Amino acid sequence: MNLLLLHPEEITTPGRALIHVSRYPPRAGLWPPAPGRQLRVGLLDGRIGTATVEQVNEGVASLAFDLRDPPPAPLPLTLLLALPRPKMLRRVLRSAAELGIKAIWLLNATRVEKSYWQSPLLVPERLRDYCAAGLEQAIDTVMPAVELRPRLKPFVQDELPTIAAGSTRLVAHPGAAAMATAAPAPVTLAIGPEGGFTDYEIGLLGEAGFSACSLGPRVLRVETALPVLAATLLPPRD
Amino acid sequence: MNLLLLHPEEITTPGRALIHVSRYPPRAGLWPPAPGRQLRVGLLDGRIGTATVEQVNEGVASLAFDLRDPPPAPLPLTLLLALPRPKMLRRVLRSAAELGIKAIWLLNATRVEKSYWQSPLLVPERLRDYCAAGLEQAIDTVMPAVELRPRLKPFVQDELPTIAAGSTRLVAHPGAAAMATAAPAPVTLAIGPEGGFTDYEIGLLGEAGFSACSLGPRVLRVETALPVLAATLLPPRD
Repeated sequence: MNLLLLHPEEITTPGRALIHVSRYPPRAGLWPPAPGRQLRVGLLDGRIGTATVEQVNEGVASLAFDLRDPPPAPLPLTLLLALPRPKMLRRVLRSAAELGIKAIWLLNATRVEKSYWQSPLLVPERLRDYCAAGLEQAIDTVMPAVELRPRLKPFVQDELPTIAAGSTRLVAHPGAAAMATAAPAPVTLAIGPEGGFTDYEIGLLGEAGFSACSLGPRVLRVETALPVLAATLLPPRD
Repeated sequence: MNLLLLHPEEITTPGRALIHVSRYPPRAGLWPPAPGRQLRVGLLDGRIGTATVEQVNEGVASLAFDLRDPPPAPLPLTLLLALPRPKMLRRVLRSAAELGIKAIWLLNATRVEKSYWQSPLLVPERLRDYCAAGLEQAIDTVMPAVELRPRLKPFVQDELPTIAAGSTRLVAHPGAAAMATAAPAPVTLAIGPEGGFTDYEIGLLGEAGFSACSLGPRVLRVETALPVLAATLLPPRD
């Protein structure tokens, strides 16, 4: 954890916040707080700065903070992701938030196991927690929007044209003839489930203007493929 | 799992192997085997091909296989990695193997917790298992060499000049002035621990010809940073 994300309800008066010490595990890097300790903090969806721990009483730390800097620029990439297995979802959302992705659509696909949609982890609070962990790692404050779409076809036909308007549209597909390469921003990137999108689904995305691209002969897990694709399509810039 | 890695001791006669069904969990994709089922297989450090399950008896599957194709080209990147916490080590080695990295040096650094070196996971068998999972994902057979060096300075001064000879030498360092960008292959890439290398360690690597490079204002976990760096320094090619 490189930044402590302040939630609006934790701010008591301008420049002061009360944080439950139990909000983070003891080994979370910046934590546990001790009087006088300096922390990097940021306001959820707001600016970044520093805080000083004033006191710790009955499990609550009081902080005096000053927020000066804007959060880093977002990655201009909208992610369409076939819903991964719940254990992997956590890590993928955290990575996506780390990378600066701000719009994530979790989609159904033929090879998504039906049971994944029943996972108790798929509630907005949990999804936000996973993303918050990525923001606190990457020193960012802007919470990604995560939307669930358990029906692929109506999403692609009715919503996607507006979402992807004006963007480079790509679907990562092992075995595609074209290699992934740097692309004009913004990018809308679709990543399939384990086993990939079906030919029908690639066709459906093709009708919506999505070209298939590959990363070569290696088939990567979505956890590895996402950062590789992000860096390949939109190479890091100052 | 996209490939089943055959170990030499599992091969009984040319073209035939006996595999314990318990070697993989039931949900490992290609598994469990059933007579007639076709699998993609590869011989450890050898060629890739297909196998047919002939029969399954008392927990042992007999396979008839034919190996035709060479494994994919390695990624020309030698990785120097400050030893991550044990839970993360597993995922990072798996990712490194997925990406095609074949030489991995696990190093000490000031900000590596001493306890990490005591982990029971740091035995060759486990390290190979983690790498094997990456190979079986990425359809590769060539086992990375993983070496442990619990003393940084003698490694950098005595061994590294030979290891890194003729390569582009880079150390990923949040806050470095230079941005990471495509680099001439081969590359030797050093990645520090959580909290980064110290200034002294950056200096030590500097004397060994390593330039510091950054990925921008975001500080990524090593799990995310590794695939981003691999794709940035050596963009995917056909």
